[in-house]
Amino acid sequence: MNKSEFGVIGLGVMGKSISLNIAEKGFSISVYNRISDGEESIVSDFLSDNNFFKNITGFANLESFVASVERPRKILIMIKSGLAVDSIIEQLIPNLSEGDIIIDGGNSHFNDTQKRTNYLKNKNIHFVGCGISGGEEGARKGPSIMPGGTVEAYKEIAPILEKIAAKDSQGKPCCSHIGNDGAGHFIKMVHNGIEYAEMQLIAEVYSLLHTSLSNKEIAKIFENWNLGNESSYLLEITAKILRKQEGKNDLIDIILDKAGNKGTGSWSSKTALELGFPNTMMTSSVFDRYISSFKERRVELAQKINRKNTNESVNIEQLKKGYQFARIINHQQGFGLIKEASNFYNWDLNLSEIARIWTNGCIIRSKFMEDSISILKENEDYFEDQNNFNYLNSSEASIIKVLQFGLQNRISLNTLSASYNYWVGMTTKKLPANIIQAQRDFFGAHTYQRIDTDNSSFFHTKWQEL
Amino acid sequence: MNKSEFGVIGLGVMGKSISLNIAEKGFSISVYNRISDGEESIVSDFLSDNNFFKNITGFANLESFVASVERPRKILIMIKSGLAVDSIIEQLIPNLSEGDIIIDGGNSHFNDTQKRTNYLKNKNIHFVGCGISGGEEGARKGPSIMPGGTVEAYKEIAPILEKIAAKDSQGKPCCSHIGNDGAGHFIKMVHNGIEYAEMQLIAEVYSLLHTSLSNKEIAKIFENWNLGNESSYLLEITAKILRKQEGKNDLIDIILDKAGNKGTGSWSSKTALELGFPNTMMTSSVFDRYISSFKERRVELAQKINRKNTNESVNIEQLKKGYQFARIINHQQGFGLIKEASNFYNWDLNLSEIARIWTNGCIIRSKFMEDSISILKENEDYFEDQNNFNYLNSSEASIIKVLQFGLQNRISLNTLSASYNYWVGMTTKKLPANIIQAQRDFFGAHTYQRIDTDNSSFFHTKWQEL
Repeated sequence: MNKSEFGVIGLGVMGKSISLNIAEKGFSISVYNRISDGEESIVSDFLSDNNFFKNITGFANLESFVASVERPRKILIMIKSGLAVDSIIEQLIPNLSEGDIIIDGGNSHFNDTQKRTNYLKNKNIHFVGCGISGGEEGARKGPSIMPGGTVEAYKEIAPILEKIAAKDSQGKPCCSHIGNDGAGHFIKMVHNGIEYAEMQLIAEVYSLLHTSLSNKEIAKIFENWNLGNESSYLLEITAKILRKQEGKNDLIDIILDKAGNKGTGSWSSKTALELGFPNTMMTSSVFDRYISSFKERRVELAQKINRKNTNESVNIEQLKKGYQFARIINHQQGFGLIKEASNFYNWDLNLSEIARIWTNGCIIRSKFMEDSISILKENEDYFEDQNNFNYLNSSEASIIKVLQFGLQNRISLNTLSASYNYWVGMTTKKLPANIIQAQRDFFGAHTYQRIDTDNSSFFHTKWQEL
Repeated sequence: MNKSEFGVIGLGVMGKSISLNIAEKGFSISVYNRISDGEESIVSDFLSDNNFFKNITGFANLESFVASVERPRKILIMIKSGLAVDSIIEQLIPNLSEGDIIIDGGNSHFNDTQKRTNYLKNKNIHFVGCGISGGEEGARKGPSIMPGGTVEAYKEIAPILEKIAAKDSQGKPCCSHIGNDGAGHFIKMVHNGIEYAEMQLIAEVYSLLHTSLSNKEIAKIFENWNLGNESSYLLEITAKILRKQEGKNDLIDIILDKAGNKGTGSWSSKTALELGFPNTMMTSSVFDRYISSFKERRVELAQKINRKNTNESVNIEQLKKGYQFARIINHQQGFGLIKEASNFYNWDLNLSEIARIWTNGCIIRSKFMEDSISILKENEDYFEDQNNFNYLNSSEASIIKVLQFGLQNRISLNTLSASYNYWVGMTTKKLPANIIQAQRDFFGAHTYQRIDTDNSSFFHTKWQEL
């Protein structure tokens, strides 16, 4: 029997799609799924549903599955993150050989990936924590792939991963070696954080437009924006969403306004809090989902508020500028967090290359992400890019008008506000943080620095006689 | 030799102060500090500095220290949180007897306290994770004390803790049994989160007033507010800070505007993110400290901004209302998080009683905290209190004016903005979260709920033909 070139564990939605993608590209592949309640026939069903692919072999026995893959084995696990990943790793270990490669394609936390990498390194097994973005469609047709781990392991798996990945505008694969250990899962996590804020911004823009415009009219505006610098996959699908009918109704009007979440957005925020980096927008986007979840409470409290609706119309040109302003700040915060982590974990990440592999196959692909490839190549910081800084500076008046419209019309704009306040904060010479330092020194003797000495000295004042 | 009634481990600033407080109240006390570099004479120095107290006995040997305390032993550890706590616990265990009580008075993370409680329970030793607030002065003269753990353990230590605690306006001690395992450290953590936002709000108010007023003029306004409903310890010390001179200069003007932090603020935010609760204000306050830390960057970028300063004056009455508005939202979010955690961890916390022990001895004591005792007794929710809801509702126009002033004068108001956006979000019947749910279902098949069915059903739409 010929050995397979690649193995996939887990035939959930993502595992199936990526297996078919691999098979379609001509690689021979072994697939495995555990036999458990309700999943008895998952492997055989998958094989019979896709029997035009002669290069897929299915297994319900892990040992035979592993034995069927050629060495060094490349085995991709596509299962729920968490303890299940540790469990499958433990089951794999006795069956693997030195130099084999386990690729975790799920949304594992990068700290877990770091631990697993070290654990397996001691057993001479490579571990590749691999972010995969694009949902079901992306996995099937070409996702954005973010593999972490050693260069050595990447070289082995690159021919397959680069083949199944989405392609950028130059035809290059949206797959690149990210950095050591947890780097791949880290940037997938930040990808999702950026995604949260991009989604929330569109939602806030929608709520501003919806004071006076119908869903169809808003769809038309988004379609128009999608022809220019504001264009993105998320804006594109939102226009489609707004045009979707159910009978005579717009489907969007029937969807309950309680946003769910699967945790990775809050992971980014928690990591930002730990690293001391101000990711205000992705965090407020997570909190906005939480606020939305109090639906019954909101309905109840709203009845007690007696405010007249002005029915004013927001200025669409200003809104467009304000929206783009906020998106740039969101990318500044997202890539800023990546840079911060790169320094902290010694990952030596290439921001421009990360932007490049995010230009196709993933949820946050956009015109601005395309532009980011060259921007981040030059500066690794949007504020250092003259064009971007000028855009932000000249759009300040627009975002102000947008926020004022929100204030006048009782529209909660947490994430647009966060973009403005971050921008103003970062471009303000003197912030009132001296008050906070004085307070901390007053009640806790935490000391402070002074503007009339070098920054390395700390002082304490006896603020009052005790 | 007579045994001591209480033991204290760790003679840092807080350990010393609380030991003196205990001795002053007439309890016999043993104190211990490890012998390490630079700390050889810490115990003997402490004893000789305070030799008018005849009821303090010092030890540099842990075994003798433990043996000197009467059973069941009550030993308070006042050392740096983290691994040092585990280490001292391990050293204590072989010397302790069944039923002895270890009290951790440091700022330990409540999850660590939960683990330690379980670990020691198996050894029949009580563990009391005990929040202590009030800084050095509070520890010496009467802190706010928040002990978690079993009722049984609390009964043993109550006579001492309640004696050394601050007293509320009725003369009752600001010390109360909070709840099981990590409950005490949890609420100390939230205390600090509320504190972060209270401090940031004062800083933002200061920056609004400082466009047209001097430090002394602002001090006068704060002193005036301190006579009414807005009064708080933090506002009081801020007025003193603003009046503090260094030679001819106001000291506040010489203090560098880079705010530090010791982590517990970000712990609250991370916990809120985990529990799914929208603590937007304490989180933006943490991020504002981070933003302030980019001082050199801010100075550099500020030079590129060419905006005229309007020199307008903020309306002080509106600002006062807006400030109080934001403070109420801050308390709503803080106590909301406590309630959420109480349900999640089955702690059965008494919010009114927590407010009571925070009315003296701690950093966030205030007139509003006094009022909170009865508010939270009735409703456990400020929005359910008619007076508070009316105040918020009628002050909405004022917070809007304040935020508009910030927009017009280029003042970053992250935390005031967060208060407004939370209030509006929570009192809005229909938020644009339906857009987010539609997007999630479009790209990830995450499903959504509908307004025309009961909330328990989930739907998926094929948004486009793939």
